[in-house]
Amino acid sequence: MPTRVLTGITTTGTPHLGNYVGAIRPCVIASRRTDVESFFFLADYHALIKCDDPARIERSRLELAATWLAAGLDPARVTLYRQSDIPEIPELTWLLTCVTAKGQMNRAHAYKAAADANLAAGEDVDAGITMGLFSYPILMAADILMFNAHQIPVGRDQIQHIEMARDVAQRFNHLYGQGTDFFVLPEAVVEAEMALLPGLDGRKMSKSYDNTIPLFEGGAKALKDAIARIVTDSKLPGEPKDPEGSALVTLHDAFGTPEQNTAFRDALRQGLGWGEAKQRLFELINGELAPMRARYEALINQPAELEAILMAGAAKARAEAAPLLQRLREAVGLRRMVAAPVAATVTAKADKAALAVFKQYREADGQFYFKLAAADGRVLLQSQAFAGGRDAGNWVKRLKTEGAAALGEAPVTLGEGVSTEEVAQALAELIAAAAE
Amino acid sequence: MPTRVLTGITTTGTPHLGNYVGAIRPCVIASRRTDVESFFFLADYHALIKCDDPARIERSRLELAATWLAAGLDPARVTLYRQSDIPEIPELTWLLTCVTAKGQMNRAHAYKAAADANLAAGEDVDAGITMGLFSYPILMAADILMFNAHQIPVGRDQIQHIEMARDVAQRFNHLYGQGTDFFVLPEAVVEAEMALLPGLDGRKMSKSYDNTIPLFEGGAKALKDAIARIVTDSKLPGEPKDPEGSALVTLHDAFGTPEQNTAFRDALRQGLGWGEAKQRLFELINGELAPMRARYEALINQPAELEAILMAGAAKARAEAAPLLQRLREAVGLRRMVAAPVAATVTAKADKAALAVFKQYREADGQFYFKLAAADGRVLLQSQAFAGGRDAGNWVKRLKTEGAAALGEAPVTLGEGVSTEEVAQALAELIAAAAE
Repeated sequence: MPTRVLTGITTTGTPHLGNYVGAIRPCVIASRRTDVESFFFLADYHALIKCDDPARIERSRLELAATWLAAGLDPARVTLYRQSDIPEIPELTWLLTCVTAKGQMNRAHAYKAAADANLAAGEDVDAGITMGLFSYPILMAADILMFNAHQIPVGRDQIQHIEMARDVAQRFNHLYGQGTDFFVLPEAVVEAEMALLPGLDGRKMSKSYDNTIPLFEGGAKALKDAIARIVTDSKLPGEPKDPEGSALVTLHDAFGTPEQNTAFRDALRQGLGWGEAKQRLFELINGELAPMRARYEALINQPAELEAILMAGAAKARAEAAPLLQRLREAVGLRRMVAAPVAATVTAKADKAALAVFKQYREADGQFYFKLAAADGRVLLQSQAFAGGRDAGNWVKRLKTEGAAALGEAPVTLGEGVSTEEVAQALAELIAAAAE
Repeated sequence: MPTRVLTGITTTGTPHLGNYVGAIRPCVIASRRTDVESFFFLADYHALIKCDDPARIERSRLELAATWLAAGLDPARVTLYRQSDIPEIPELTWLLTCVTAKGQMNRAHAYKAAADANLAAGEDVDAGITMGLFSYPILMAADILMFNAHQIPVGRDQIQHIEMARDVAQRFNHLYGQGTDFFVLPEAVVEAEMALLPGLDGRKMSKSYDNTIPLFEGGAKALKDAIARIVTDSKLPGEPKDPEGSALVTLHDAFGTPEQNTAFRDALRQGLGWGEAKQRLFELINGELAPMRARYEALINQPAELEAILMAGAAKARAEAAPLLQRLREAVGLRRMVAAPVAATVTAKADKAALAVFKQYREADGQFYFKLAAADGRVLLQSQAFAGGRDAGNWVKRLKTEGAAALGEAPVTLGEGVSTEEVAQALAELIAAAAE
């Protein structure tokens, strides 16, 4: 079985160049490995926790779907879906909610950070904290366990949530598994060299610092304009420049070949002007992005086509999710009322003609006997000889009421080629029919 | 619109006589009112909070469905369903989770009672408390709001949960409603005289006191045996007995006519023996239950038939739930990607034949002109005269690229009966089509 890798993307933002280098590009490359089965989803239920602007969520879903596809994600190879198209996920969330300890949620980092901030500000510990924030590790566990993903690529701050998913999975397996495990225990895979791209001001590129370089939005012009605004020192053209610590160089490293990157450093040391350096950087990045941008623009202008791709992905995902959820529902007792404990009786009634029958008789030797004959005439049980008919009748009565439990004592032998199981079954059916 | 009344029954127990008198019988009677629309559901997601025995849940669902139907609930008149057959409910639960304050859950009675017990025992405040117990008021809010129920018959201990459902509904309406309300605010209806039937030992009949009288299970014999075990004083036959405070009398009151109940009291005062009194009580109760018991036994032996009734109920319930959930999904931003902001482009492409066209021409006077003609031939714009064809061509180019923004400067007049909006729309469609 190939390794299953699952990645979720919260649908609140517009992807920027840092997302591309840090997450999108490596994930797309990893998704092409033949020993890996990749699941990608737009985490729009998670988006509702922190965003109550419907237009933002709608737009972000569109942009993210178009971006990942434009960046090379192949929906025929991976399973790409919107979380909110999989109704099995909120249902599994509830099943897991019932086996999750509240104490564990109290210790979740995201909640603790918000609670600590409240306390530091002299507020009530839970001021402004929603149940969405408090319980989202359970939703996240459902995202992962629904598809029995083996590996979850995450940042360090998310390791704890994967551990919580493992705990919940173990508790469910233990409570309901009866020896079989429903859930694979997922592992966090922390990218050791998760690229941290610098933003316009040299700090980590992040929407919260307002220092991002756009990926596709605004076209080549927006990319060029942003690169032009990257902060540099004030050395003039011709002056040697130190490449180390320059955001331009770090960005260049993320897109160039080793040779190109060395040449860029050398040129700076030899006095390349910042304006010219920015032009070279723009051309390098745009060379990689331009063909993707064309695909992105085509996709974002064809929302119905994106919708069709996502719905096909949802169908693929649900083909995995639905059978597993069905097994889980069975396990916890949410079962169809067809195989109820009394069903055997009903079957026996319907098939009355097929019941085995006891026959008592007397042979030429004057002795009494009985046998149990199957509906098709085969002898299932043959008694020894009894001196009196009443003795034979008593054994028949015991077998008819006690069933297979009386077989050990009864003076009978099995018919040729007949198993004890077959006799036990025939006796059980007789008892069930008599009980009606 | 009739008043909607919603009642949920947790599927962990077997109904006893106290349940019948306190809940089942009054609810069934109320469900026959023509000004009321009743929703009854087997709360099996709630059952998972306190019961991890699948066989118990399976059996309880069967018994409860058979009991309510045997007691006279008419599935053609009411909506009777299993909670776990409505996938819209866990999804709504998540939407509500995102707008529920954690502080509110901290104050829920059921959670506080468990937490206080932990503290009193010197344990961690959340020892043994699951997220199911902590967050079930949200599931309960979803149960109620999913069907926009007006009234929820509850015991006093549940009033707070209905208030929480109101709060959550208000918060959602406020955040996403934009003037329209998605949710009716439900009201708790506390049965003023909710009959509290005494059990075998005279205390309130309750499974937790192990003092229940069975309803249907065990047949008439089990009912008779239980009544025989009701505790009385040791007065002998012939001795006058005080009817007040006797469990037998309270039970008799719950089933007899006023005349029968008076006669029973009188007979006790006149020395009726306890054994004889118990026999009379049994006959009275059994008179009401016997026809129901026959229906119950028929139903419980036909689980497939119960299943069919419940599935039909689920279909009826989902016909209500699905359209509301669809509106809620739209409201929070979980929308199909068809009506996205760029959809106009797609339409324009499909209707290429319907686009307006610019026509340039030269008149007999030697001057150059252009006009914009609608697909149906009407003139939308008419230019002034130009000395050169190139001038006319430049204006056409500007209108084709800048659209309505160029209208203010362009030397054109609107066609007869044509509005600026129509021209702006026609130009926008041309631009969209050209962009493809």
